[in-house]
Amino acid sequence: MDLKTLIRDIPDFPKPGIVFRDITTLLRQPEGLRATADLLREQCQGAGFAPDYIIGMESRGFMFAPLLAYQLGAGFIPVRKPGKLPGAIHSVEYDLEYGTDCLEIHQDAIEAGKKVLIVDDLMATGGTAKAAAELVGFCGAELIGFAFVIELVALKGRDCLPDVPIISLISY
Amino acid sequence: MDLKTLIRDIPDFPKPGIVFRDITTLLRQPEGLRATADLLREQCQGAGFAPDYIIGMESRGFMFAPLLAYQLGAGFIPVRKPGKLPGAIHSVEYDLEYGTDCLEIHQDAIEAGKKVLIVDDLMATGGTAKAAAELVGFCGAELIGFAFVIELVALKGRDCLPDVPIISLISY
Repeated sequence: MDLKTLIRDIPDFPKPGIVFRDITTLLRQPEGLRATADLLREQCQGAGFAPDYIIGMESRGFMFAPLLAYQLGAGFIPVRKPGKLPGAIHSVEYDLEYGTDCLEIHQDAIEAGKKVLIVDDLMATGGTAKAAAELVGFCGAELIGFAFVIELVALKGRDCLPDVPIISLISY
Repeated sequence: MDLKTLIRDIPDFPKPGIVFRDITTLLRQPEGLRATADLLREQCQGAGFAPDYIIGMESRGFMFAPLLAYQLGAGFIPVRKPGKLPGAIHSVEYDLEYGTDCLEIHQDAIEAGKKVLIVDDLMATGGTAKAAAELVGFCGAELIGFAFVIELVALKGRDCLPDVPIISLISY
C-alpha cells in the first residue's frame, strides 16, 4: 500500500506558504492505520531496534508510540508540553522559528542504562526530536534510534540529531 | 494483572485537593501497557462493539484510540483542541468548572451512518465525552458506545452521556 496516497496535502496551513501533510486521512482508513503501524514495526525490527522504552511526543507522537511499544513489547513514555506531567520532571528548552518551546519528561520514567527509541509523526527541522533526545540523556538512558512516519527531507532534520539510526516511512 | 496497582496517585495536582491518577507509571511497564490494551479490546468485544471508527480525544485519548482501532480493525479519528486540525471542521463548546473549552473534528472524517466508538483515558464529569458525542452527531454518524481506562465514579459522568453502552477498566 502506498501510504502517501492516503495523506492529504493542505496548502497554507498553519500559515501561508506551508503545505501541511495531513495524516488524519491516512489513519481514518482501517487499512491505512494497519499498514502504517505494521510498516513502522517492520522497519524498526529491520533496523535492529530492541528498545526497553519508546518515547512519544505530545500530541501526534502519542498516536504511534504506544501502538509501536505494544507491538515491540516495550513500555511507552510520554514527553509532554509544560505543566502536564504530574510528577518531578526534567525539562528542556528548544528553539522555534520565533521564540522557544519546552518539553518535559518524568525524572523517574527511565532507569539509567535502558535502551530508548524516540517516535514522532513527522520530522521537520528536527528540533523537537533533538530536545527529546536531550531528555533521554538527562535520565542517563541510552538512545538507540528515531522513527518517524513522515520526514521532510529538504529541512535536513537529521543533521542536528545524535548519531544513531533514523528510520522514516514516507519522505517529502 | 491488577492495573490499579500500577497507577500512581499524585495529591494536589493540578490543584490543591485533587488526587491525580497518573497512568504514565502503568504504560511505562511493558506488561502494564499490554494488559491495559488487551483488556480494553476484550471488554469492547464483550460489549459487542464493532465500530467503523474509533475517536480519541487530544491528548491522552491518542494513547489508546489508535491502538484499540488497530486491534479491532477500525479507523482512528482524532478530536482535537481548537486550531490543530487543518481541514474544514465541526466544533463544539463545552463547560468547564471555570469558563468553556472547545473541541473540533474534521467535517469529512466520518460518513453519515457509520458506527463510532469514543475512547478516552479517563472519565470525570463526562463533559469532554459528551462534547465528542455531539461532534459525532454533527457528522450524522451513529454513536455505539464509550470506552474509558479510568472512571471517577463519584463524579457521575455517565449521567450526562447519551444512552449507549459505557465500559471502563478501572473505577475510583
